[in-house]
Amino acid sequence: MTKDIASVTKIINCRLVRDRIIHDDVLYLQNGKIIDPLGNFFDRGEEPTRVIDAKGALVAPGLIDLQVNGGFGFDFSQCDAGGEQIYVENMKKVAKSLLKFGCTSFMPTLISSVPEVYHKILPLLYPRKGNKNDGAEILGAHVEGPFISYDKNGAHKQSNLRDAPKGFADIAKVYGISETENNQSIKLMTVAPEVEGIMDSIHDLTRAGITVSIGHSMATVEQAEKAVEKGARLITHLFNAMQQFHHRDPGIIGLLGTTRIPRPFYGIICDGIHVHPNSLRIAYDAHPRGAILVTDAVTAMGLPPGEYTLGQVRVRKIGSERVEVVENGKLAGAVASIDKCVRNFKKFTGCSIVQAIEAATLHPAQLLGIQHRKGTLNIGADADLVFLDDDLNVIECFIAGEQV
Amino acid sequence: MTKDIASVTKIINCRLVRDRIIHDDVLYLQNGKIIDPLGNFFDRGEEPTRVIDAKGALVAPGLIDLQVNGGFGFDFSQCDAGGEQIYVENMKKVAKSLLKFGCTSFMPTLISSVPEVYHKILPLLYPRKGNKNDGAEILGAHVEGPFISYDKNGAHKQSNLRDAPKGFADIAKVYGISETENNQSIKLMTVAPEVEGIMDSIHDLTRAGITVSIGHSMATVEQAEKAVEKGARLITHLFNAMQQFHHRDPGIIGLLGTTRIPRPFYGIICDGIHVHPNSLRIAYDAHPRGAILVTDAVTAMGLPPGEYTLGQVRVRKIGSERVEVVENGKLAGAVASIDKCVRNFKKFTGCSIVQAIEAATLHPAQLLGIQHRKGTLNIGADADLVFLDDDLNVIECFIAGEQV
Repeated sequence: MTKDIASVTKIINCRLVRDRIIHDDVLYLQNGKIIDPLGNFFDRGEEPTRVIDAKGALVAPGLIDLQVNGGFGFDFSQCDAGGEQIYVENMKKVAKSLLKFGCTSFMPTLISSVPEVYHKILPLLYPRKGNKNDGAEILGAHVEGPFISYDKNGAHKQSNLRDAPKGFADIAKVYGISETENNQSIKLMTVAPEVEGIMDSIHDLTRAGITVSIGHSMATVEQAEKAVEKGARLITHLFNAMQQFHHRDPGIIGLLGTTRIPRPFYGIICDGIHVHPNSLRIAYDAHPRGAILVTDAVTAMGLPPGEYTLGQVRVRKIGSERVEVVENGKLAGAVASIDKCVRNFKKFTGCSIVQAIEAATLHPAQLLGIQHRKGTLNIGADADLVFLDDDLNVIECFIAGEQV
Repeated sequence: MTKDIASVTKIINCRLVRDRIIHDDVLYLQNGKIIDPLGNFFDRGEEPTRVIDAKGALVAPGLIDLQVNGGFGFDFSQCDAGGEQIYVENMKKVAKSLLKFGCTSFMPTLISSVPEVYHKILPLLYPRKGNKNDGAEILGAHVEGPFISYDKNGAHKQSNLRDAPKGFADIAKVYGISETENNQSIKLMTVAPEVEGIMDSIHDLTRAGITVSIGHSMATVEQAEKAVEKGARLITHLFNAMQQFHHRDPGIIGLLGTTRIPRPFYGIICDGIHVHPNSLRIAYDAHPRGAILVTDAVTAMGLPPGEYTLGQVRVRKIGSERVEVVENGKLAGAVASIDKCVRNFKKFTGCSIVQAIEAATLHPAQLLGIQHRKGTLNIGADADLVFLDDDLNVIECFIAGEQV
């Protein structure tokens, strides 16, 4: 496939962010992939004529965000009657806007909603490749709720929450997915394992191709460990919307110290507001390979302060970083971009550049089982790249081999 | 000093527990110290005739326990009128009994009491060397309270708690110590930094030769960090009797993730009851070099189940491991011996033998600044030793070079 050297792009003067930083290196791209010049044109003594100079920038895999409720004025949980076309256009607008943050893959995330909303919106959220025109790749939908705890609803409307006495059948019905065929859109689901019918459905969900995450939950540590044994692999925004840590029942947070294998990954909102930096450091030191940065971004990301809608809930943006529910002042998602989260993470934990970037690239890819094509600069991976300066500010972004 | 080879003891067939385990090694003891044969009789081709065969046992520094309220039926906070002689005899009985657990140094610990009790008991608790007849070395007193939080009193009587509006003057008066001369007895003090007058007294306390610990406290993470900046170096029984961890205000527990240098040590009760094993693992993974095992042992340690007294509070021992306040069922100290805590710690954290033992030897010695003579097998250190089998059960104990 790489016979045609005219379609190869060579990026020179890179500091490649692999498992360590490789200085003065080059990267070859073709047909949207990272390719190996060896055994190919390189052996024939040929070199691509299309050359891009990275000028010594850090060249990292594109960032991945597993939890994007919305942004730039759009809310993924809202679709007006007959508005599918508008919805798709808005989704594309968000996907394109994310590229400027170096975010090349994401999961549109739906807050707990009534079944009709899922039935209308989920068919629009199937996974699709990204490109320069359509923006960041869509990895499928993250459905956060409605099978979550009434007591840890956060910004979710309590009247939308549900249990599943008939297990997977109830779950499938709410989302409008098949009980027998693999669902197309839902790739990540946040559930509370203590909600009726959920614990025993985790295995079915994983068989349906859905990664199961524990969150918005009052689970005890025993329940949380049982959910992990059943197949749950992620904790949704660790610390937020879960039973407070108690030393004799550390709850879901206690999974950081579990001996169950594999220890789950944990999403964390690293905006400096949702979690105290010391809490972040404790989590990171306890389980560094499990950290996954998520923005939990809402409509107001990228917009000026003011009132906006999250699902059917009114929220208020105050200053540049805080969003709260108008009714009760609870935190309601975040507005820090994913690249900002990476910078915060490095600053708060004192970790290396490689470790900070892996928390938004390799780790989420590993969680979803897509590390062969996302989250690394390995040969064969999608050519989703972000150029960063030494302070991890975004200089340039590539999606599927195209310079943005 | 080592001219007289007749006074040297050689221990052969040791597995020495240094920063790693050294197999097939020997140890030389003389005059209560570990000595160096080089530059001495060894160079003269002489060998001691007094030889002890460790038979391949692990040979570790003697264990140190910073928090012993009592045991074997005796309560360090109780001294009847005119009973000083009896008190000292009972203290000796405890100190001797501790040797069978491999504990060669400890701090008698006083629960929050009225000033008269301190004035009577503290003069009896000055540091003194251990030996075979008198038992484990007394490192001085640990006074836990009365300058602690009314809301986190645990088993401490609320009516005994105090604040210190006049700072160090008030503190000195309560304990009956001098404001100008170094106190003789108090070597460790647990305080709540938010209690009036305490925060600004920490520096004075450290100047008086007292190691300051934070505990029984509602301190926020900011208050806790400030206390560390002022000179506090330990957290008293981490997780127990402190504000619950909250991700946006992790409180004292948040010191595990602080960037303030030095990060404080933390005492931890590793009896499997006071702290969930997952919580322990999180703490240990976050700050492995800070772990210090303490028993928090009470009167009932070593006794059958039943009712006993802790200070002026009635407590009940249930089964072999739980002690609770009769009145309200709160946990009231523990009854697991320090060697049991070491075994639990290794089991719960999955750490190495060396790491488990360091948490009851090197780390407490470092906290108190006595690592030149306690907590290691270095040349010049006190010859306090414990022989252990592979499961860390105590086989033999040496105190100041004497085999017990």
